[in-house]
Amino acid sequence: MDPDRLQALLDDVAGGRVPAAEAFARLRRLPYDDLGFAKVDRHRALRAGGAEAVFCPGKTPDQVVAILRSLIAEHANVLATRADAATAAAVAAAQLPHVYHPLARLIVARPEARDGIGLVVVAAAGTADLPVAEEAALVAEALGNRVERVTDCGVAGLHRLLAHRELLAEANAIVAVAGMDGAMPSVVAGLVDRPVIAVPTSVGYGASLSGLAALLTMLNSCAPGVSVVNIDNGYGAAHQASQINQLVAKIR
Amino acid sequence: MDPDRLQALLDDVAGGRVPAAEAFARLRRLPYDDLGFAKVDRHRALRAGGAEAVFCPGKTPDQVVAILRSLIAEHANVLATRADAATAAAVAAAQLPHVYHPLARLIVARPEARDGIGLVVVAAAGTADLPVAEEAALVAEALGNRVERVTDCGVAGLHRLLAHRELLAEANAIVAVAGMDGAMPSVVAGLVDRPVIAVPTSVGYGASLSGLAALLTMLNSCAPGVSVVNIDNGYGAAHQASQINQLVAKIR
Amino acid sequence: MDPDRLQALLDDVAGGRVPAAEAFARLRRLPYDDLGFAKVDRHRALRAGGAEAVFCPGKTPDQVVAILRSLIAEHANVLATRADAATAAAVAAAQLPHVYHPLARLIVARPEARDGIGLVVVAAAGTADLPVAEEAALVAEALGNRVERVTDCGVAGLHRLLAHRELLAEANAIVAVAGMDGAMPSVVAGLVDRPVIAVPTSVGYGASLSGLAALLTMLNSCAPGVSVVNIDNGYGAAHQASQINQLVAKIR
Amino acid sequence: MDPDRLQALLDDVAGGRVPAAEAFARLRRLPYDDLGFAKVDRHRALRAGGAEAVFCPGKTPDQVVAILRSLIAEHANVLATRADAATAAAVAAAQLPHVYHPLARLIVARPEARDGIGLVVVAAAGTADLPVAEEAALVAEALGNRVERVTDCGVAGLHRLLAHRELLAEANAIVAVAGMDGAMPSVVAGLVDRPVIAVPTSVGYGASLSGLAALLTMLNSCAPGVSVVNIDNGYGAAHQASQINQLVAKIR
Amino acid sequence: MDPDRLQALLDDVAGGRVPAAEAFARLRRLPYDDLGFAKVDRHRALRAGGAEAVFCPGKTPDQVVAILRSLIAEHANVLATRADAATAAAVAAAQLPHVYHPLARLIVARPEARDGIGLVVVAAAGTADLPVAEEAALVAEALGNRVERVTDCGVAGLHRLLAHRELLAEANAIVAVAGMDGAMPSVVAGLVDRPVIAVPTSVGYGASLSGLAALLTMLNSCAPGVSVVNIDNGYGAAHQASQINQLVAKIR
Amino acid sequence: MDPDRLQALLDDVAGGRVPAAEAFARLRRLPYDDLGFAKVDRHRALRAGGAEAVFCPGKTPDQVVAILRSLIAEHANVLATRADAATAAAVAAAQLPHVYHPLARLIVARPEARDGIGLVVVAAAGTADLPVAEEAALVAEALGNRVERVTDCGVAGLHRLLAHRELLAEANAIVAVAGMDGAMPSVVAGLVDRPVIAVPTSVGYGASLSGLAALLTMLNSCAPGVSVVNIDNGYGAAHQASQINQLVAKIR
Amino acid sequence: MDPDRLQALLDDVAGGRVPAAEAFARLRRLPYDDLGFAKVDRHRALRAGGAEAVFCPGKTPDQVVAILRSLIAEHANVLATRADAATAAAVAAAQLPHVYHPLARLIVARPEARDGIGLVVVAAAGTADLPVAEEAALVAEALGNRVERVTDCGVAGLHRLLAHRELLAEANAIVAVAGMDGAMPSVVAGLVDRPVIAVPTSVGYGASLSGLAALLTMLNSCAPGVSVVNIDNGYGAAHQASQINQLVAKIR
Amino acid sequence: MDPDRLQALLDDVAGGRVPAAEAFARLRRLPYDDLGFAKVDRHRALRAGGAEAVFCPGKTPDQVVAILRSLIAEHANVLATRADAATAAAVAAAQLPHVYHPLARLIVARPEARDGIGLVVVAAAGTADLPVAEEAALVAEALGNRVERVTDCGVAGLHRLLAHRELLAEANAIVAVAGMDGAMPSVVAGLVDRPVIAVPTSVGYGASLSGLAALLTMLNSCAPGVSVVNIDNGYGAAHQASQINQLVAKIR
Repeated sequence: MDPDRLQALLDDVAGGRVPAAEAFARLRRLPYDDLGFAKVDRHRALRAGGAEAVFCPGKTPDQVVAILRSLIAEHANVLATRADAATAAAVAAAQLPHVYHPLARLIVARPEARDGIGLVVVAAAGTADLPVAEEAALVAEALGNRVERVTDCGVAGLHRLLAHRELLAEANAIVAVAGMDGAMPSVVAGLVDRPVIAVPTSVGYGASLSGLAALLTMLNSCAPGVSVVNIDNGYGAAHQASQINQLVAKIR
Repeated sequence: MDPDRLQALLDDVAGGRVPAAEAFARLRRLPYDDLGFAKVDRHRALRAGGAEAVFCPGKTPDQVVAILRSLIAEHANVLATRADAATAAAVAAAQLPHVYHPLARLIVARPEARDGIGLVVVAAAGTADLPVAEEAALVAEALGNRVERVTDCGVAGLHRLLAHRELLAEANAIVAVAGMDGAMPSVVAGLVDRPVIAVPTSVGYGASLSGLAALLTMLNSCAPGVSVVNIDNGYGAAHQASQINQLVAKIR
Repeated sequence: MDPDRLQALLDDVAGGRVPAAEAFARLRRLPYDDLGFAKVDRHRALRAGGAEAVFCPGKTPDQVVAILRSLIAEHANVLATRADAATAAAVAAAQLPHVYHPLARLIVARPEARDGIGLVVVAAAGTADLPVAEEAALVAEALGNRVERVTDCGVAGLHRLLAHRELLAEANAIVAVAGMDGAMPSVVAGLVDRPVIAVPTSVGYGASLSGLAALLTMLNSCAPGVSVVNIDNGYGAAHQASQINQLVAKIR
Repeated sequence: MDPDRLQALLDDVAGGRVPAAEAFARLRRLPYDDLGFAKVDRHRALRAGGAEAVFCPGKTPDQVVAILRSLIAEHANVLATRADAATAAAVAAAQLPHVYHPLARLIVARPEARDGIGLVVVAAAGTADLPVAEEAALVAEALGNRVERVTDCGVAGLHRLLAHRELLAEANAIVAVAGMDGAMPSVVAGLVDRPVIAVPTSVGYGASLSGLAALLTMLNSCAPGVSVVNIDNGYGAAHQASQINQLVAKIR
Repeated sequence: MDPDRLQALLDDVAGGRVPAAEAFARLRRLPYDDLGFAKVDRHRALRAGGAEAVFCPGKTPDQVVAILRSLIAEHANVLATRADAATAAAVAAAQLPHVYHPLARLIVARPEARDGIGLVVVAAAGTADLPVAEEAALVAEALGNRVERVTDCGVAGLHRLLAHRELLAEANAIVAVAGMDGAMPSVVAGLVDRPVIAVPTSVGYGASLSGLAALLTMLNSCAPGVSVVNIDNGYGAAHQASQINQLVAKIR
Repeated sequence: MDPDRLQALLDDVAGGRVPAAEAFARLRRLPYDDLGFAKVDRHRALRAGGAEAVFCPGKTPDQVVAILRSLIAEHANVLATRADAATAAAVAAAQLPHVYHPLARLIVARPEARDGIGLVVVAAAGTADLPVAEEAALVAEALGNRVERVTDCGVAGLHRLLAHRELLAEANAIVAVAGMDGAMPSVVAGLVDRPVIAVPTSVGYGASLSGLAALLTMLNSCAPGVSVVNIDNGYGAAHQASQINQLVAKIR
Repeated sequence: MDPDRLQALLDDVAGGRVPAAEAFARLRRLPYDDLGFAKVDRHRALRAGGAEAVFCPGKTPDQVVAILRSLIAEHANVLATRADAATAAAVAAAQLPHVYHPLARLIVARPEARDGIGLVVVAAAGTADLPVAEEAALVAEALGNRVERVTDCGVAGLHRLLAHRELLAEANAIVAVAGMDGAMPSVVAGLVDRPVIAVPTSVGYGASLSGLAALLTMLNSCAPGVSVVNIDNGYGAAHQASQINQLVAKIR
Repeated sequence: MDPDRLQALLDDVAGGRVPAAEAFARLRRLPYDDLGFAKVDRHRALRAGGAEAVFCPGKTPDQVVAILRSLIAEHANVLATRADAATAAAVAAAQLPHVYHPLARLIVARPEARDGIGLVVVAAAGTADLPVAEEAALVAEALGNRVERVTDCGVAGLHRLLAHRELLAEANAIVAVAGMDGAMPSVVAGLVDRPVIAVPTSVGYGASLSGLAALLTMLNSCAPGVSVVNIDNGYGAAHQASQINQLVAKIR
């Protein structure tokens, strides 16, 4: 419940248009009827264009279905991340309205098309980084952002990245996804003056240490303007890119 | 805000006794008014027998003096941990009532003798572990606990530990301090059925990895009843031992 | 065998009421007929409300059955931790009296209901932490403690934790279970002045390093009053919480 | 070289207006002529409100003086980070216009007051985190942003953080600085829907692993909306916060 | 397209032998029609005796087939590394001309026999290192080098290595493959004055840390003349050995 | 070539008894002729009571069969370590004389009973450590040593270890096998003055880091007289214990 | 107390020859009487040719003097390891009879020349490893062993090692000291069939990780017969080598 | 002694021009008079244009002087690496002919100008990497190679690197030196088809882990043609680059 609606409700109570008991019931049902902190959560959901995402690992398919059913009662474009085929099948069997993106392991429940605003660019260094990059791109789209994808632009073939320099320079936020040496986000931040949210991936072997090497590379970027999220965390990068893009686009 | 107070507030709005705008402000402010965290902190200080401890590293001697002066206005036995000689000298120059324990690098400001209650045993595996063990023992005493010290009882000379088995079995909480192989707390927990709070120390070299080896040993204790605090954290272990001992002694 | 009983036995031998041979047999059968250390073990089992727990990994189902059969001859509520379905099936096939808790992977053999004493609170940060939290809760109950569960109270939704502040403040010991950032136990220890035993879980991915990140967070808690056990070690935390709670409740 | 220009060049060769040799030379040189990287850098400097920062470690005081002298010929508010007293003395001796902030180890050369735009909030968990936080705040100010500081708001005293919730909710970007358990940024991101750039600090000891523990905590934040920079990298966080804030404030 | 061909094409345009439109079409299709960097790639492919290698993990069999089909249109001896049986089967089903080496997990598509030039020696410390060593040897052969294999020459049986000293001393580059203690490349570099490219393998257990131990050994070689590639990266070592050998053999 | 032989050779050249060319060839070849490493290996096999052991991982069952067939032509009690069921089946199918010990994953080919000499004690801390301990015990027996086993003697039940103190004190070498906290070898070395070869095992979870915790514990033993082998390396420990025991028993 | 003595004691009680109270006292005191840990320690000191060594770090010079004074009352050749110049000066000022070896940082108090028995060879890979190697050699001599030193025999100059092969083959125990790649002990164990106790040193830089790289190399030795002690632990290696050598030489 | 000289000496003995005793003395003095391996070393020194380098850390200034004095008796351009000011002063005081390069911490003893052959390019990513890069460049020059330096060409300012692409493409070997993110060598290897020897430096802070981050980046280079040496090991990289360059230049 945002401040306007709260103010209006209280005015209605003061004006006798809404009985105190009914206001009590409505406020009570809100997350903050005890402590108020959940009001923040509710506000965030409304403003950010979607509810909290459901992280599927460690939950049974039935649990995911139950949580999604509850969330889509109030929200569109509810996200379930890292959903495997079994979870997707359970959501389908439960006849929840949804789209499942197997490459990105993403379910968008109660999907609703939106005109994306602003610009978030999602760049992937190699083809093996695509699952993570696609998760980021789809999440950013579901959160209401315009998204452009740049793929296969690692530093071993620098010209492929340079070809997209103008697009990168227009972005309000860039999600840069790379495994192995993780060098691409540094190069991007050296090219354009836009916030780069780097996502290391677990792509690689041996001394890639399941993505730790790429993570460290990114944290040590010699170009300023790079911040980093957890390995393979396309969702988290897209969430923050969306926060930035929507602040810039003045819709929040 | 509990349901009753929310209902009452809404009744007041409906009855015109509270304007809607004021109710709005109070509902908005609620999470802070109600939590009363400062009270919690104040209560803890009183119940626990002392104020928050001052962690000296990263603070100038003058800053430590200022903080202590403020705290001893309300509390006795205020602790400043990891205080070096310069800090101690500054406290002395400021003529704050205090005792400085150089081995333990501990300042007890506005010291006040207490009859220690219950029993906390502080055991040290080697002589090089004494600074950390002594910090733990002095902190526990300052917090109002009866403390017994057992020293030089590492597993290389097991009989020295076994000689104190009855004392250990009487403790309400045991602080077990060890570096190098860190094996002593496991042995203590295998001997007596009392909660053991293990403190790894940075004593050692090479593969001791500055105390990480001892830390890992303790976390993997094959005897149940061992929990662990940070390397060299004598203060933290004594704090928790004091919590336990005073709960047992029924003074909190 | 405690000193009184030893004295009495020897008096009986001296008085001719017990033949030397019988005294020999009794002293011999006791774990300490050579060294005396096992007396502690026997006492611990009785006082703590149960026998040593059986750690199942690395044991065949048949071995677990054999060990449980031996232990339930003398004890109720014998625990077998991390028991998989095959082990549970073997225990069932052997017709041992027991309850199997699949979520917690826990077998309680010769289960015996008890009135829980005192209060241990088991708090879990996220739903994926529930298996570890439930292991802790069930172990604490089996050991004779009153247990209250607080679930889904991670710092991303702080109000859910704050709603239970009073319950936390009543606990004699709090088991705080969290994966990913592992931040919840620090917050709990900042809220209430009760001993917090933190359990990092392996929930997470990438830079969670299978729970090491949460473990390190907890060891570095900026709030005093937190000690830590091994990753996913719900049993160990419950064991120590039980030690503390029962000392407080004066039954040991 | 875009297709139109390539077509025109070839037409010129075909028409004899450009010799083949000259076309060869231009096609060969192309990648460099067209990229214009130096222009990019120059543009960035102007748009971002300042020149590239000088990272002092590994440079002699004389080298820093020479580089600053060169840069202030064209820019105001030139930053030299991690400048020790000797470097500051050399800059003073060279009579360069500047301000030295010893706590933040920051030199602002050719300082020029600006009306800060938008809002960047810099929050520090503990007093020992202040050097890093102050570096971030001063850098953000030098880059032309309005900055508000929130200090000593770690999770051990949550009310201190909550008291500033409204300020945090107004920020276009939040720089959250924390050492030890590094838990504060997660809590901030759970409270307000603004991009949080987390800076782990090397404050701590033992298992803090010189800031790695806090770094891992932040990467594993259970609240979305957190990205992370290198340990103690106040400059980098402020740089990205400035990028975001100025995009939002529509000055770039 | 190499400089000669570019010059000739432009001459033809200038001389009216090739219309500008046709030249446009040809230059456009080349990788560098925008930026020129791909020219390098094309040149490298021709000179090095083969196209870019395809790293199979993370690609579907169908994707590998498609990429290979595209590459063999222009190149012989196209390599697909770490190809599993399913990928090899897909390549066979697609009736691409190829040879599959299961031990080395290597596909050579459009294979073409060549007279190997110069000398690359591939030495393997143990039989378990053979898959990596064989990958290196086959890659070096496909790239047009003469290759000699030395197997089972670890330092536990030094004489087996010494028996091949003269062969090693003739090599233009030595690929030295070793797991476990990774000591062999140091010994080789101490014996002969030829560049040694060391490949640590993941062969080992426990403290081999999946090849990190061997990697560290090689990086710390007390004999100069050793450089190192990633764990199990036989391809990368062979690629660089080929670069060196062909420079020496004056074919590039 | 020792000085005498060199002098003689030169005298022969001077005296015309050996042509310069032949002397040149012999001097060039010298390092190999003289080292005679293969003889060393052969000698070791005979003296040590068996041939080189075959490490099975990374070898196909057929390869193991072939190697064993070759070795048993000359040796009895040839060992194949870490042999899985498929390898054992292949050895059986090949009708090689052998015994397979599935718990220890050990094949003894051409088994030959021997009167064990001296005394090697193999002690295991827990039942889950038995596979590694049994590998050590069987290897030591196959190498001709008298072996005594002590099981389930971890420090959580110290009396079980102490009960075997006299046996331990008689050993010429003690193999001490422990996982989890790895504390037992330190205790053993504190009890008896005999060389202890400690074997960490991968038994444990979480912060045991697959045996690294136990390894570090053992390397940091506060009792002198402990050396350590790789995690789970029962074979290696037994090999060295056999070397020591047989030197003591004067058979080598 | 063994069964016979227990039976006899009880018979004496039953027969009135021993009062129950006295039996009680003796049974109670048992762990000390029977375990005789101090005796064990005392015996070890005598048999091993010296008292416990004093590890100086973490002890003040005065403390070291006091401990040495106490020990030399009963023992000759008392060792104080890692003694810096200040400690040596204090020992000299106290006029304790002693020799100080600055390279090895070793004090031998109440030195007493002995005819060394058997043979321990101490081999050092490089000159920078000499302090650790010399500590090992001097300790072994002080403990009564004949010691031969082999220096500068790293694998980069293999012939220097091979020149001493016969000496190595005569040793009852070999202490092999190496930093950087740590490869030398593997080579030694491949040459001769004698127990090798490897000592990694902290000599090196970068990826030597202060000796961890050498430590890992040694733990992964592909030649059997190598066990390992802590980094720079020359004392520990010499202690175990002495145990082995003296068992072989039949003086214990 | 190379084969030609050995053959000539033996011919002289056979022809009576050199007495056998004199030949004995000369052969005996050579490193290989026992084993022949040192012949390799002597050959290497001659062919590679200089003697073995002296690694100064862990040696006293006097030791370095003594070793250099011995080596310059036979060789020019003898290198002493990582020489601090005290060592340089001792060499000067001893009046050895030499040049000291303080930035590179390198002493060239008995310096002798040479016409460098071939081409080695040494590229440094940042100014703080210059000490390591300069060590590499000076070593390569002392070993007789033509060297070109490219400085300050990190990926944050890519155009600075691209400007040198033609020079890089001419090199027979490229030494690429970078700290922090270590990304530059990957970019170089993507640009030109020449062997790149990457040197990670310890430049950086926090998550650079003293150069480990850059090391891992380089090992995971997504461009083939990169091999890696130890952190800060400019000498090692130059040594191997020299091996390659001189093989290509046909002088060895």
